[in-house]
Amino acid sequence: MSTNYIKPQLSAGFRDYLPKDQIPRQKIIKTIQNVFESFGFVPLKTPAIERKINLTGGKDLDMEIFKAKLEGSPKELALRFDLTVPLARVISANPKLEKPFKRYQVGRVWRGERPQDGRYREFLQFDADIIGTKSLMADSEIVAVMFETMKALGVNNFLIKLNNRKILNGLSQYIGFDKKKTRDVLRIIDKKDKKSWPELEQEFKKEVKLSNDQIKKIKEFISIKPGKEELLNKVKKLMAQSKQALVGIGELLQITKNLKALGVDDKNWDIDLSVARGLGYYTGTVFETILTDLPEIGSIFSGGRYDNLVNRFSPADISGVGASIGVDRFFVAMDKLGLIENIKTKTKVIVLPLNKDCFLESQKIVSQLRQNNISAEVYLGRADSFKEKIIYAAKKQIPVSVIIGPDEIKKKLVQIKDMEKEKQIEVKIDNFIEKIKEII
Amino acid sequence: MSTNYIKPQLSAGFRDYLPKDQIPRQKIIKTIQNVFESFGFVPLKTPAIERKINLTGGKDLDMEIFKAKLEGSPKELALRFDLTVPLARVISANPKLEKPFKRYQVGRVWRGERPQDGRYREFLQFDADIIGTKSLMADSEIVAVMFETMKALGVNNFLIKLNNRKILNGLSQYIGFDKKKTRDVLRIIDKKDKKSWPELEQEFKKEVKLSNDQIKKIKEFISIKPGKEELLNKVKKLMAQSKQALVGIGELLQITKNLKALGVDDKNWDIDLSVARGLGYYTGTVFETILTDLPEIGSIFSGGRYDNLVNRFSPADISGVGASIGVDRFFVAMDKLGLIENIKTKTKVIVLPLNKDCFLESQKIVSQLRQNNISAEVYLGRADSFKEKIIYAAKKQIPVSVIIGPDEIKKKLVQIKDMEKEKQIEVKIDNFIEKIKEII
Repeated sequence: MSTNYIKPQLSAGFRDYLPKDQIPRQKIIKTIQNVFESFGFVPLKTPAIERKINLTGGKDLDMEIFKAKLEGSPKELALRFDLTVPLARVISANPKLEKPFKRYQVGRVWRGERPQDGRYREFLQFDADIIGTKSLMADSEIVAVMFETMKALGVNNFLIKLNNRKILNGLSQYIGFDKKKTRDVLRIIDKKDKKSWPELEQEFKKEVKLSNDQIKKIKEFISIKPGKEELLNKVKKLMAQSKQALVGIGELLQITKNLKALGVDDKNWDIDLSVARGLGYYTGTVFETILTDLPEIGSIFSGGRYDNLVNRFSPADISGVGASIGVDRFFVAMDKLGLIENIKTKTKVIVLPLNKDCFLESQKIVSQLRQNNISAEVYLGRADSFKEKIIYAAKKQIPVSVIIGPDEIKKKLVQIKDMEKEKQIEVKIDNFIEKIKEII
Repeated sequence: MSTNYIKPQLSAGFRDYLPKDQIPRQKIIKTIQNVFESFGFVPLKTPAIERKINLTGGKDLDMEIFKAKLEGSPKELALRFDLTVPLARVISANPKLEKPFKRYQVGRVWRGERPQDGRYREFLQFDADIIGTKSLMADSEIVAVMFETMKALGVNNFLIKLNNRKILNGLSQYIGFDKKKTRDVLRIIDKKDKKSWPELEQEFKKEVKLSNDQIKKIKEFISIKPGKEELLNKVKKLMAQSKQALVGIGELLQITKNLKALGVDDKNWDIDLSVARGLGYYTGTVFETILTDLPEIGSIFSGGRYDNLVNRFSPADISGVGASIGVDRFFVAMDKLGLIENIKTKTKVIVLPLNKDCFLESQKIVSQLRQNNISAEVYLGRADSFKEKIIYAAKKQIPVSVIIGPDEIKKKLVQIKDMEKEKQIEVKIDNFIEKIKEII
């Protein structure tokens, strides 16, 4: 026999979800979906593979994205790295889509992350965006969706941190550095959870050439204690010189009022001046969500408002606001917090035929159970001993076993075993469904 | 302004699903999932990208599969082209998985099909397999799953066609050609729905070097009218010389009995000797499903029994049986049959604030609706005229509008408009939820 077997292994950065993980993972996805739909978001699906130029906009992102190549085809294709660029393409290609367009999309994305950092190269994102409106009600609604989603997922200890890029854009005036450096300054601020302050200090010095005084002032600013109206009033005074900052402060004040009307619990959100969100395209409200019992994993649900969503594809002026939850990272966090229920199967009843002569009768029973909307399966293994069959049922954590042998068939009976209570009863075949309904 | 915009288009063979298509498509997926779970199947998720060697087993499939390439990485990766090879890998890598292992998997696969044939290069498959048992109960259960799935999807006019590869393997003896040619003969028979008989005849002559007499006999054999027990008894006599064929006939007889016990309607299945399933790995029962109102689209749900599932990865002797439904092709068929419900949104109520001063009150109302498990949204657009707002609600086919203006706020009222009946009533804010529940 050949021993040239292929190792059944995945490339680093990729993983399987076996049923014990995939069952709760699907439950999380379904929960998020239900909340998003309750807010009127509708689903969109786009392909995993797009023309590379769609995704990169012509920029050199070769180190970060997976190219998809068909032998002999000259087409330059790649795997999407987020769901926002495909959304922009769909919006541009379908100008008749009714706006405001509230879409959600759940789908995998691929990035060339270094797998040795414990990061995945393929992961599931769940996005909600409201396209084609500048109303701050939309920003508020996205925050409310985030709040309701976390509650629905059974998480109570979380904090949604809000800020506004217009306030941060006012930093150059407040602190006194060249406006052109703003983008780089925000990019460095955004690393505050991943790097130490001395490291950030070095970056401010080397990369943006800020003075020690300027760096100190930035540190003071982003360290202002998070708050709500009182914080905004304080910043209003600090940044009275910056028109842009004042607009941003006004927007956050309005959102503060909206969130109360929307029933978002005060304890689950705050305004935090250190929230920058590195991505260049945000222009207004920005937000991220931390699990207060697990702050070290960083933001698991974040987003913001962007103008010029489609500027790569068309001159249309389309803005929007949205948020994205990283399902895989969230799953890991939920697991760490003990919030993942261990469900091995959704089967409620397993039918165990004592021998081959009981197969047909077993199939009739299982078919009856399903007709009564009870998930059921027949034991399909080859085990001869009854013990082995019961062990299989127990390992799969199926709550009820129905045992059927030649005697039972003759007497028109079945044995019903409540697996948890380890109690077995004998019932007539005519009313076994009712008995089972009593147990489950 | 630059006019160098990127065309917002997809590569040929790829498509988007806008909400009007994705809403019913998700419903189809959910229905299939519910049926599979009711039979005790549990979900598995594997990555889209695998090591190329896993997928090809070392064969040259470069023309058919998409390679996935990260710049600067020497790794040979590719996109999966089915869900069976990843299943085999998972089974090999996790020998402790309890068997029989009943798993379902829904996921996209990618193939280098020629898009000009109207085929997709990315499509969604939904598979169910029972691994680690040779019991014919498992084969029967897969057929029952197929039957129940079609019924649950609202399709009544379908036919599951069964055959057994062991019968077809007996053809060489029955017709008198070299046993080694069997695989090629079956591959050609499998094309019977896509090509004309004269075309197949040419292939039998040129590729397998069969004589006119032999070809005629094959045609007679696969043209035997489909049936059940009576057909099997007829074939038993015809092929009495082939031990293998007799085993296959016996298996189909047993499955015939099982299907009755499982409640599979006689009118929805038959034994059809022309069903070959081209894939080399089938070894026993094979089946495909046609929509009798749309036979030209071919099989939409098919599969069979295979031995040596994992032989690429390990010497373990693991057999299984499974079936796969092509969701996208099925979706197209359902659409043609008028079975796709046009649902534009799941929102039940839209709240229309008459002006900016009513925003906060509107958000309170929408929040109350959601707390009562009624999907609701506020109109977030910039339209000033009331007419435009109502048109937006009508276009989105939302059944109820709640209208709120300064007068209503003052008097603690809301206007509720039943969009279908075009009837508007004024109700007190205290009991508007009840009134809405009456309408929806």
